[in-house]
Amino acid sequence: VARAADLAIGTVSRALNGHDNVSPEAREKVRKAVEALGYQPDILARSLRTRRTRTVGYIVRDITNPLFSTVAYAAEATLERRGYSLVVGNTFDRPEREREIVGAFLSRNVDALILSPNEDEGADIIAKASDLGIPVVALDRESPQPADCVMTEHVDGVKSAVSYLLELGHRRIAIITGSAAVFAGRARLEGFRRAFQERGVPVPEDLCFLGTFTREYGQQVAERLLNRPDRPTAIVCGGTPLLLGLLPVVHALNLSIPEDFSVICCDDIDITRLYRPPITVVRRDMSAIGRAVAELLIERLDGGRSGPGVTRRFPTEVVLRGSCSAPKAG
Amino acid sequence: VARAADLAIGTVSRALNGHDNVSPEAREKVRKAVEALGYQPDILARSLRTRRTRTVGYIVRDITNPLFSTVAYAAEATLERRGYSLVVGNTFDRPEREREIVGAFLSRNVDALILSPNEDEGADIIAKASDLGIPVVALDRESPQPADCVMTEHVDGVKSAVSYLLELGHRRIAIITGSAAVFAGRARLEGFRRAFQERGVPVPEDLCFLGTFTREYGQQVAERLLNRPDRPTAIVCGGTPLLLGLLPVVHALNLSIPEDFSVICCDDIDITRLYRPPITVVRRDMSAIGRAVAELLIERLDGGRSGPGVTRRFPTEVVLRGSCSAPKAG
Repeated sequence: VARAADLAIGTVSRALNGHDNVSPEAREKVRKAVEALGYQPDILARSLRTRRTRTVGYIVRDITNPLFSTVAYAAEATLERRGYSLVVGNTFDRPEREREIVGAFLSRNVDALILSPNEDEGADIIAKASDLGIPVVALDRESPQPADCVMTEHVDGVKSAVSYLLELGHRRIAIITGSAAVFAGRARLEGFRRAFQERGVPVPEDLCFLGTFTREYGQQVAERLLNRPDRPTAIVCGGTPLLLGLLPVVHALNLSIPEDFSVICCDDIDITRLYRPPITVVRRDMSAIGRAVAELLIERLDGGRSGPGVTRRFPTEVVLRGSCSAPKAG
Repeated sequence: VARAADLAIGTVSRALNGHDNVSPEAREKVRKAVEALGYQPDILARSLRTRRTRTVGYIVRDITNPLFSTVAYAAEATLERRGYSLVVGNTFDRPEREREIVGAFLSRNVDALILSPNEDEGADIIAKASDLGIPVVALDRESPQPADCVMTEHVDGVKSAVSYLLELGHRRIAIITGSAAVFAGRARLEGFRRAFQERGVPVPEDLCFLGTFTREYGQQVAERLLNRPDRPTAIVCGGTPLLLGLLPVVHALNLSIPEDFSVICCDDIDITRLYRPPITVVRRDMSAIGRAVAELLIERLDGGRSGPGVTRRFPTEVVLRGSCSAPKAG
């Protein structure tokens, strides 16, 4: 480019990188030379100077989970408009893999990270990333400064859903969700308990199952619960993989929803909308959450925001469908 | 590192990069110094020398489609073990966005690309990437040399599925799929036609709908077809988004599967397994396909394979479930 524009290499470099100390004439010369050559600024070479790669790492439990792919889609669409690409790493709930992927992403100089860390490992990983001075957004995790957080009001949503079941007359209500060491598991259990406490009804502690956000755990608990003579009259699945684990057990035992028991699921996916009967859900807007994650990063990367982390909270709403009815007398 | 190991910088660099012309003693010195310093090789600086970024770009219609996220998951799991990360770009079937994302990925020196290009744009995009000398794997697309291809035997699968419907006695069978300019659409239509031709039954050309692989198209065709007095007795959805568009129409019209019409879907996802009745599908192993894509890239990137592109073909199988029955007399 410098040869074609008949300018010093330093001048061309300053012009391409948008520095001020370049005369308008030189800038125009560079622009014409760039056009004529079809030159694309080499992002790699530029990265080494600026220490910026214009990539954002998204470390996710499992990108095949539709909630996480929806966040990836919405975040990527927002980031892409600002010239950032999204690098995806799957951890499948294995803390050691999470740590490895964070390390790999930091070694290749990602500009920022989106994290939903596993349990207690989280704070440490976020602190490590923050030490390197790159922005971190924690998704649905209470996180140490200076990470930004995007949280969901799980407590309110589950509390409303369980209040609705109590109003219908249910008392033997079970909840299946992830570990209490993860915000979503802890908050959903909290919402479950509060609904009982508000009505002065004892919390059925023996029907609270906190394990992992996996199909396997959903299936395992469903097999225990649905074979009991005193089967619960309603089950809250605190996470869509748990519902996906429960439904095959329902079919295998030839049970019917809501005739044999009512079901509510946290989060709305194709299967909750299209199942017969459609499943009552605690819904949140995952696309809006994905956009918010990207916007928080862009504010820090390009907008100059610095300082303490901010938290954006997203509401949940209960969407009533055909999977709930009053419990059978008995 | 060089100072700590008391060696020349060139020696350290050669040792870190695994060159042969370094003495075992020097290599050991470097290893110890690296350990003591907690040094992580700076992938970015190394990238500029090697022109390698150890990233693979995956350009995908929509990562929220479970087939594509399954490919991403399987490919990432395989690539990650070899030190590569997966960068994802969504195009949502917009050819201009596809072109932009390929450009953005090439500008940032991805080492390889995984592409399922849109229609006729494809050959051109693959040629452009190949000109830059980076490996390209085309996913379910017939592609120009030297790209490698991972293809699915859609013709066989749909032919078997439609033969099964013909055996059950169906004649007014509809197919809804994507454009004939895309391999999957073209091949599924071909399989549909062959099943009729083999039995000497005329192909119901008025029931062949080739549009886009989207829910919107599935819904639009379902609304036309299911409101007709001479409703087809069976519908083949050539792509899961088309089934996801059809099912809400079935529910809105209060129709029952298979009593009112039979359904077969190409590809097996949660909804086809868990729907009541479960949906008969033409299945392929998307995880195996994702792994194959990654392996083809690794062979070229790290294994030294060069030369003309190779094609790996994956079979399909029909999985019979409750969504098909003989047509009602009439």
